[in-house]
Amino acid sequence: MIVVMDHHAGDGEIEHVLERLKKIGFKTHLSQGIERTIIGAVGDRNILCDVNLESMPGVEKVVPILQPYKLASRTFQEENTIIKVGDLEIGGDTLHVMAGPCAVESREQLIQAARSVRDAGGAILRGGAFKPRTSPYSFQGLAEEGLKFLAEAREETGLLIVTEVMDVRDVSMVAHYADILQIGARNMQNYYLLREVAGIDKPVVLKRGPSCTIEEWLMAAEYIMSGGNYNVILCERGIRSFENYTRNTLDLTAVPVVKHLSHLPVIVDPSHAIGKWRFVPPMARAAIAAGADGLIVEMHPHPEEALCDGQQSLTPRGFKLMMDDLKKIADFMGRKMP
Amino acid sequence: MIVVMDHHAGDGEIEHVLERLKKIGFKTHLSQGIERTIIGAVGDRNILCDVNLESMPGVEKVVPILQPYKLASRTFQEENTIIKVGDLEIGGDTLHVMAGPCAVESREQLIQAARSVRDAGGAILRGGAFKPRTSPYSFQGLAEEGLKFLAEAREETGLLIVTEVMDVRDVSMVAHYADILQIGARNMQNYYLLREVAGIDKPVVLKRGPSCTIEEWLMAAEYIMSGGNYNVILCERGIRSFENYTRNTLDLTAVPVVKHLSHLPVIVDPSHAIGKWRFVPPMARAAIAAGADGLIVEMHPHPEEALCDGQQSLTPRGFKLMMDDLKKIADFMGRKMP
Amino acid sequence: MIVVMDHHAGDGEIEHVLERLKKIGFKTHLSQGIERTIIGAVGDRNILCDVNLESMPGVEKVVPILQPYKLASRTFQEENTIIKVGDLEIGGDTLHVMAGPCAVESREQLIQAARSVRDAGGAILRGGAFKPRTSPYSFQGLAEEGLKFLAEAREETGLLIVTEVMDVRDVSMVAHYADILQIGARNMQNYYLLREVAGIDKPVVLKRGPSCTIEEWLMAAEYIMSGGNYNVILCERGIRSFENYTRNTLDLTAVPVVKHLSHLPVIVDPSHAIGKWRFVPPMARAAIAAGADGLIVEMHPHPEEALCDGQQSLTPRGFKLMMDDLKKIADFMGRKMP
Amino acid sequence: MIVVMDHHAGDGEIEHVLERLKKIGFKTHLSQGIERTIIGAVGDRNILCDVNLESMPGVEKVVPILQPYKLASRTFQEENTIIKVGDLEIGGDTLHVMAGPCAVESREQLIQAARSVRDAGGAILRGGAFKPRTSPYSFQGLAEEGLKFLAEAREETGLLIVTEVMDVRDVSMVAHYADILQIGARNMQNYYLLREVAGIDKPVVLKRGPSCTIEEWLMAAEYIMSGGNYNVILCERGIRSFENYTRNTLDLTAVPVVKHLSHLPVIVDPSHAIGKWRFVPPMARAAIAAGADGLIVEMHPHPEEALCDGQQSLTPRGFKLMMDDLKKIADFMGRKMP
Repeated sequence: MIVVMDHHAGDGEIEHVLERLKKIGFKTHLSQGIERTIIGAVGDRNILCDVNLESMPGVEKVVPILQPYKLASRTFQEENTIIKVGDLEIGGDTLHVMAGPCAVESREQLIQAARSVRDAGGAILRGGAFKPRTSPYSFQGLAEEGLKFLAEAREETGLLIVTEVMDVRDVSMVAHYADILQIGARNMQNYYLLREVAGIDKPVVLKRGPSCTIEEWLMAAEYIMSGGNYNVILCERGIRSFENYTRNTLDLTAVPVVKHLSHLPVIVDPSHAIGKWRFVPPMARAAIAAGADGLIVEMHPHPEEALCDGQQSLTPRGFKLMMDDLKKIADFMGRKMP
Repeated sequence: MIVVMDHHAGDGEIEHVLERLKKIGFKTHLSQGIERTIIGAVGDRNILCDVNLESMPGVEKVVPILQPYKLASRTFQEENTIIKVGDLEIGGDTLHVMAGPCAVESREQLIQAARSVRDAGGAILRGGAFKPRTSPYSFQGLAEEGLKFLAEAREETGLLIVTEVMDVRDVSMVAHYADILQIGARNMQNYYLLREVAGIDKPVVLKRGPSCTIEEWLMAAEYIMSGGNYNVILCERGIRSFENYTRNTLDLTAVPVVKHLSHLPVIVDPSHAIGKWRFVPPMARAAIAAGADGLIVEMHPHPEEALCDGQQSLTPRGFKLMMDDLKKIADFMGRKMP
Repeated sequence: MIVVMDHHAGDGEIEHVLERLKKIGFKTHLSQGIERTIIGAVGDRNILCDVNLESMPGVEKVVPILQPYKLASRTFQEENTIIKVGDLEIGGDTLHVMAGPCAVESREQLIQAARSVRDAGGAILRGGAFKPRTSPYSFQGLAEEGLKFLAEAREETGLLIVTEVMDVRDVSMVAHYADILQIGARNMQNYYLLREVAGIDKPVVLKRGPSCTIEEWLMAAEYIMSGGNYNVILCERGIRSFENYTRNTLDLTAVPVVKHLSHLPVIVDPSHAIGKWRFVPPMARAAIAAGADGLIVEMHPHPEEALCDGQQSLTPRGFKLMMDDLKKIADFMGRKMP
Repeated sequence: MIVVMDHHAGDGEIEHVLERLKKIGFKTHLSQGIERTIIGAVGDRNILCDVNLESMPGVEKVVPILQPYKLASRTFQEENTIIKVGDLEIGGDTLHVMAGPCAVESREQLIQAARSVRDAGGAILRGGAFKPRTSPYSFQGLAEEGLKFLAEAREETGLLIVTEVMDVRDVSMVAHYADILQIGARNMQNYYLLREVAGIDKPVVLKRGPSCTIEEWLMAAEYIMSGGNYNVILCERGIRSFENYTRNTLDLTAVPVVKHLSHLPVIVDPSHAIGKWRFVPPMARAAIAAGADGLIVEMHPHPEEALCDGQQSLTPRGFKLMMDDLKKIADFMGRKMP
């Protein structure tokens, strides 16, 4: 860490900072330039979170040098994390596509969706049981009944189940039904929820918050990992920018960046990022080409009748075409699809 | 609402959309131009949340015309909402400043802070008992002990208490100690938490999410109001932009915009928006000049020893100077300060 | 176009707007709802640019329905534009990669770069002769001497030349040497420069401005086309967001979106978007998978000695490896590479 | 400057970087930590612009410590720059308001506007003679005829004239008529234009680019100053964010930040930032409260007939009311208005 002193900083102020750093166990190095005095400091960055160097007199700014996350970093673990769930491996050679409707609406809708997912080569069924949405007047989900339908669909099709948990009080119930839990984008920094899923033994899909940097995203993963659950699957789903033709701006570069900084698997959700079904297949293809370990996409038996997000859902036929296409690009990337 | 049809849309597709709209009780008007066919539709927008017109064949886009929120809008209520809490009124003639440390750290620190707030003319003490932060390795707050210290500080100084609730399971406990509850920026769209605070009879400070539009912010207020709690105080605290000299970008224009669109009181948090104490006083002044109904600012007896956000905290002396300044500008704005 | 009247608007105000619209030749339709009166208006949107309906009393907002661009739209021309330059076609079956150093630094550097581009299968050499940069104290380019080196490199290797023009006074000179002119991102809305390149008979690469929407980008293309030059190649090169690990945020979804809205060819510049050479090859691959018609990438014989943007330049060897990779993915996409 | 080496960097790579730094005259300091080796380097940052340390093997990142601008910084000049133009001083005790229509449309319109500006206490008339706009089909300005009308309005009213120059070829012509030249937001990084205005002896209003950081803005000022023109007036006019209720997001915090980092005067343009006249007066007030040295606002004799930006223009009456209000707040701020 580098402490840059103000160009007016006096000797007393510099001394004060040096003492403070020594007191918390940091080794320091003083460099007095013509324009500025700079203090280099080596020690545990986590201690620094609670030391307000920037509010000390004479300090202009503090520049961190090391990454604030540890367990999630490639420095900590060189080889890729491969997460086992059922008979599948996520982050390994095989690419997995999670698909299904935004919301579980009925038993029939879900079973129909699940069959389409399975028939097209998908391995994991997605579907939301809890849908508190922007408007308090919209459909809010079937709750536990929806989870039961998901479990029935698993029985029926052999697919695994991924579903979102939104309320700390529901974590054990959701974990009872699902194979993989999802933390939604708006909850990426809901630390109470992160702590709860840190305590269960199911993998977690951690969606990137729409206004969160890659570093903050990896810090959220660190939260879960530091609580004991190492099976975190990162999911890029678009960030908020000024462009409003698409729902969000899919930051696909985050895929190779995360693979560089971290050992965790990363998947992509083009449906929520873009918000228009038409552009989902080309961007799903691009995601695989960028190195993603899998995808999560919305598919609905009858998108125009969907109670939620129909405009971004593929039809079963559109999904099948996309899957056939993806198999070829997976092959080109040296990866398999089931 | 306007449905714009694709320029290739056939008669069957147009007919299909008209039928769908009629079926859900909308009145429609068809306008066939040379380049596009456009369908105007009048009815309850909330029904539309669950009808996916945009995924119907031949539909290019759907343009909403009316605001999606009702209870929070000036159309619903012309006159300003004035919220009574203790002997104070928020949103009325008198401007109130909420101040105190980011985190409650100890009994002594808090009492000291409370006295400084009171002596400078502040009416409400802020302080966080729950501080789950970006890093899992940082100080996480004193929890209920912190709430007790807040209650003691109220006893001692007569100030009212505002504090953040982050976990749905803590809402009734926090409401037991606090006079006003705060929903933090990261929880603005945590709908489970919104529902819980909708069920209590204490006012709620609703901070704007860092990537949320003004419309989404008012929709979050609508969530709380539609659940029965009309005492919502909106708080602008900065949005995320590319500018990184400041922690966030304070969107002060949101103040007159919200006053135009809604009847709810709106306050400003310059401390979190900016992240550097030096710029808090001028922006507090600007907030009042823009028409804010109050402020919430960070003040710490010893900022450099703060366990959290010291770099954005004013000292007691800096706070006093700012308050003296604000009294003059309040006067200019035709408003009082206690 | 839809004019939404304020819910307080009186009959006189509504009448006033109707008259104004009729006066400028628009057909109108009045729809009086319970909450709002809405006026639909059909006519030439371009006239509307100069009529301030939004400042008329009683008008709440004006919602445009049609796209503001014509010549650039797929509505105007269904089939893809294929641009012929030398023996090449851009926007056709064959993907072309433009490559070379950020700045032309010397004859030797450029010839060496050109050979590496040609040997790896690139068809077009890029290199900047004018480099006014963020700092007035940095290297500013070789100007006309640089253009001569580019022409020599074309002689020597048979590659075509693309180079940026930044000053209206240089357009004819640059057009004298180059095969394709480039308008840089910061000049996307420099309308004087757009007008000048509209008057020459060479194709133009139009980079997207870092804070420009897709619609504004297509409007800039419209500017050039309406001036008589239909040979516009759109180039996505990243937009500005809060994420700062990468230089910009590559908005790859813009590729299929632009292909949907417009008939113009679209290429991608991953080097400037990302700013770190390491992530250029995966994102070049993703760009092709998303449907791009080509790429423009930075390659320098000795990146660490580059006078400009070395950190985002591939080495000749890195470039060759990427090109081999891209040929395979082009094949998968049903497209050729030379 | 700090060079952070990759955690895999070998001794040879570290040595290589040290040698490179020494070769360009930098003093270095090596700090070998457990996780990373860090090299501190002191020397002329401007040289570094052309040395690509980040592309050297083993380098993870380069962290600049000092500001890249000199002449524009408070370190270079402690006291505020006061710019004299005619009998006025900008940046001194007196606040000046520049006002007038977006575009010069006719002699009558301009004279009428000028009288309203003068009568309300404005000292400087604004009006655009060159208006190349987003749409090639909109009104594009009166060019030199417009400049002549501006000069006539000065004769008639005694107001000074500020007007935008957009084309390098027009700089001397515009400087012939105007008292102050304006560089528009889209041209903030048009370095050719910056160089031209650096060569004239009239003050320059430099608007902040909508996607430019404060640092980049100050670098653009540095461009003009390093070319010999020290009379730069910075103008905040809104940045682009995801919020779309307003045209841009007015970053008012930039005012005290710029006053802290630089000695140059800073004014605010609330009209373009917000795009809706209704919110201009409260934000003009807030700008003064934040410490701005002046304002530039749009006022049109008949906004609804304006050929450009009428929706953000005040009427003469609205302008007069705002000015009366601003005089009081200026007084509170210890500043005068004419």
